[in-house]
Amino acid sequence: MAWIFHRSPQLWSAVRHLSPHRTISFTPTTRLPPADLHGLFLTWRSGQSEASCRKLHSGAGMSEPSPAAAPERLPFSQVTQEDLVFFKKILPGRTITDPDLLESSNVDWLKTVRGSSEVLLRPQTTEEVSQILSYCNSRNLAVNPQGGNTGLVGGSVPVYDEIILSTALMNNILTFDRISGILTCQAGCVLENLSLYLEERDYIMPLDLGAKGSCHIGGNVATNAGGLRLLRYGSLRGTVLGLEVVLADGRVLDCLATLRKDNTGYDLKQLFIGSEGTLGFITAVSILCPRKPKSVNVIFLGCETFEQLLQTFQLCRGMLGEILSAFEFLDSECMRLLVTHLKLPNPITECPFYVVIETSGSDPTHDQQKLHNFLEEAMASSLVSDGTVATEDSKIKTLWSMRERVTEALTHEGFTYKYDISLPVERIYQLVTDMRTHLGGRAKSVVGYGHVGDGNLHLNITSPAKDPALLAAIEPFIYEWTASCQGSISAEHGLGLKKRNYIYYSKPSQAVALMGNIKAMLDPKGILNPYKTLPDKLK
Amino acid sequence: MAWIFHRSPQLWSAVRHLSPHRTISFTPTTRLPPADLHGLFLTWRSGQSEASCRKLHSGAGMSEPSPAAAPERLPFSQVTQEDLVFFKKILPGRTITDPDLLESSNVDWLKTVRGSSEVLLRPQTTEEVSQILSYCNSRNLAVNPQGGNTGLVGGSVPVYDEIILSTALMNNILTFDRISGILTCQAGCVLENLSLYLEERDYIMPLDLGAKGSCHIGGNVATNAGGLRLLRYGSLRGTVLGLEVVLADGRVLDCLATLRKDNTGYDLKQLFIGSEGTLGFITAVSILCPRKPKSVNVIFLGCETFEQLLQTFQLCRGMLGEILSAFEFLDSECMRLLVTHLKLPNPITECPFYVVIETSGSDPTHDQQKLHNFLEEAMASSLVSDGTVATEDSKIKTLWSMRERVTEALTHEGFTYKYDISLPVERIYQLVTDMRTHLGGRAKSVVGYGHVGDGNLHLNITSPAKDPALLAAIEPFIYEWTASCQGSISAEHGLGLKKRNYIYYSKPSQAVALMGNIKAMLDPKGILNPYKTLPDKLK
Repeated sequence: MAWIFHRSPQLWSAVRHLSPHRTISFTPTTRLPPADLHGLFLTWRSGQSEASCRKLHSGAGMSEPSPAAAPERLPFSQVTQEDLVFFKKILPGRTITDPDLLESSNVDWLKTVRGSSEVLLRPQTTEEVSQILSYCNSRNLAVNPQGGNTGLVGGSVPVYDEIILSTALMNNILTFDRISGILTCQAGCVLENLSLYLEERDYIMPLDLGAKGSCHIGGNVATNAGGLRLLRYGSLRGTVLGLEVVLADGRVLDCLATLRKDNTGYDLKQLFIGSEGTLGFITAVSILCPRKPKSVNVIFLGCETFEQLLQTFQLCRGMLGEILSAFEFLDSECMRLLVTHLKLPNPITECPFYVVIETSGSDPTHDQQKLHNFLEEAMASSLVSDGTVATEDSKIKTLWSMRERVTEALTHEGFTYKYDISLPVERIYQLVTDMRTHLGGRAKSVVGYGHVGDGNLHLNITSPAKDPALLAAIEPFIYEWTASCQGSISAEHGLGLKKRNYIYYSKPSQAVALMGNIKAMLDPKGILNPYKTLPDKLK
Repeated sequence: MAWIFHRSPQLWSAVRHLSPHRTISFTPTTRLPPADLHGLFLTWRSGQSEASCRKLHSGAGMSEPSPAAAPERLPFSQVTQEDLVFFKKILPGRTITDPDLLESSNVDWLKTVRGSSEVLLRPQTTEEVSQILSYCNSRNLAVNPQGGNTGLVGGSVPVYDEIILSTALMNNILTFDRISGILTCQAGCVLENLSLYLEERDYIMPLDLGAKGSCHIGGNVATNAGGLRLLRYGSLRGTVLGLEVVLADGRVLDCLATLRKDNTGYDLKQLFIGSEGTLGFITAVSILCPRKPKSVNVIFLGCETFEQLLQTFQLCRGMLGEILSAFEFLDSECMRLLVTHLKLPNPITECPFYVVIETSGSDPTHDQQKLHNFLEEAMASSLVSDGTVATEDSKIKTLWSMRERVTEALTHEGFTYKYDISLPVERIYQLVTDMRTHLGGRAKSVVGYGHVGDGNLHLNITSPAKDPALLAAIEPFIYEWTASCQGSISAEHGLGLKKRNYIYYSKPSQAVALMGNIKAMLDPKGILNPYKTLPDKLK
């Protein structure tokens, strides 16, 4: 299936001829599950409990929750014994109150936000979710919808004592149509399990994240997850064909269509995609899945300047065309951390910028030829300084890990301030450069990596420990800089708890006011995922 | 640029060898602007007035509007002299009251719906639209947003005396980013003009319709137009990145982002995509445009059964993979009409089913090879009976016209009852067969064609003249049949005036009620495109 590079010796000679002083190395690599939301989730494994999946280096700056980030508790009711009796009747054996069992659901994956919920509910059916929400709404009890709890903005854990309503036991695949490639499943299906199911049937999921071993498809949809295949297959707004959603008052909204086209009225499912569980509880999803590519290849290149990297991207889009499936980058600071902390060897000579390019196509020979032509042109134009091609399908892993493990390397630096910025692609690295200048010696390191193809920068700033003075230097500078370029202060992570009040940097007050109206219409008591997504005060 | 077939004699011999008794003919064809919403719009040309663009054969059944289809006029105000004074002050020379000039805006393209508006307003700026809507809302004057007036469900013309608010003079391209391929433009840009602009810059629009010479991008977005490239580039819900919208009360909602990713709050623009002008007036659009393919090829094949056609589709998806850009079909009844009424010669031997396949790729040689392999396999498997390959880029037109001109041929039959149905792809032709059985001899002809790749059937039933008894036999049979398969009674045309009351065949009452809530929230007086999209009565 994979492109075997040594079958194409002419590329070797072409590249040697063009760049006799440069080397093309051939790293024996294996194919990794492609990178995550931004490379954070490294050790998730399917089938493990959430707690056992968390294996992140505990850096010096691993912080306790910051109460300052949360607004005052809203006047929701508190859970009573009578409430528990009701829940246990609906969900016998699936109403969890043991604090130890609740711990992993009360804390987010980054361990920066902690709630104090005393009840975790694990429904199995839409009807159960409906009964629970109807009851909670009538009792004015706040509810925190939770999938795999892999979010990065504090959106997936309670802030106070909200009831945690988990999709963990809603994990049935409902239907799969082998002709159309349309899958329907319950919201709690783990992304990796869906991927494995589909691959056996010659299809793939249209999204892929490093968190796939834990994240739930319902959570992916609720957060409009991006990930690594967006460049090729587009966003969930196009690939999700239908949703079943339970509204705050328990009404079931059945929009679980399995049609590529349906223009009968307003597309209500779009309201719930990316609304982070604040408008409804997604119970089932239908999604259009692409055919499994017959050929996947990865190359790792070095560029001297970001301008050359952008030119390489343009060349790549023209010459690789329809087979280009990822174009990711990391800077030399990322590489330094990978080498220093994780002892990963740099597969090529040192460069200011590194690129991971993936192709996915239906004809291995054609893909090889296109890659050959592209590399020849990129070397001839001196756009790239050095490069490595993963030659075997089973060994692409090492190259992908250079991109995927940056976040793990970052955790060894101490405390990390993390930003997920969307910008016009030609501006994405300027923010890193400007931030370095702006911060001077205050930060330990300022690193940039991300999805070039999507104009999505992951900017991370480290310090030995949590540093309020450093934070004050970063914010609002970074948000103002982003706003000045009409960028987004959250490209794919959402707003959650942490970023809800920064929404005005990316959305005008008219828009935020309208969002507030929609929230009030769908959840008048505000019980669904309170303190998230929308700002504390409307302008 | 085009695949020159004679460079590949081995395909000739392969096919000859495999099917010695069959012929592969080589029709000298030219590349047509691909087909329309469903092949209706045939003679639109860019730059002409709307009236002069309409050149449809006036069949015996060309009907007058049916007032029965419209509900009673709602208690909106009527336009007064004072109102006209206001409009003329805002839009000097662009406030049209001459009945002759209003005629083409009062009647839809199919000439089946006629309004009686006495005012056509032609703003040039968002600010003008804002002033007009603010005024109309305060005066309780109903407004009919209008783009190119190419809709097929009576959504783009007034029902009574609504003020027509046209995007015709809002036709400026605002920005185009050559790196990201993101275009921003005013809503009144004609689709074909945008296509020409982009093609000069090595990009294309992600949608293409036969109506492109007249339809406006704002109208495309407002109706969530599908068209011929959806199979490849997905729906507008994924490719539209931003919208500027004026709300019913004149407030301007600026969601005109130019970012591939933005998860800051609810995605408000989705509300307006496909809402047919009932929730807001789209004034500007930003859209992600694909690179222009370097190679485009078209083949025309014949199949003995619809089952073989579906198998051909599956084979095609596997073997053509990432270069497949259209898979359309027509049945032998369509061919009979093309031959009889338009004197188009059947390019291959007679078959029950015909397929138009288009590929778009970045490497002509690779595309040729993939097509070669596909055709060889399709012939070897006896999936296709006969086929023609368009060999020159300038001569693909004839093959595409076999698909595009079906609707024109239909107009020669008399009156046509038109349906646009979305179904699981394996069921789409069963509806045609069942309809023929159901109608027996009552219809003159029952023909099926459409977008196999999208599961979208265009079912057309003709009679010498309008025939209420025939209509009563068709409806609700067709809607019940569709609902029984969880299909959509409007795949891409929308509901407009004509189909608003059939929404319950495809959407549950909970969903329709929520749509009503959204309408009431955004347009409390209901002035925007009244009598459209939503049913007269909520269940």
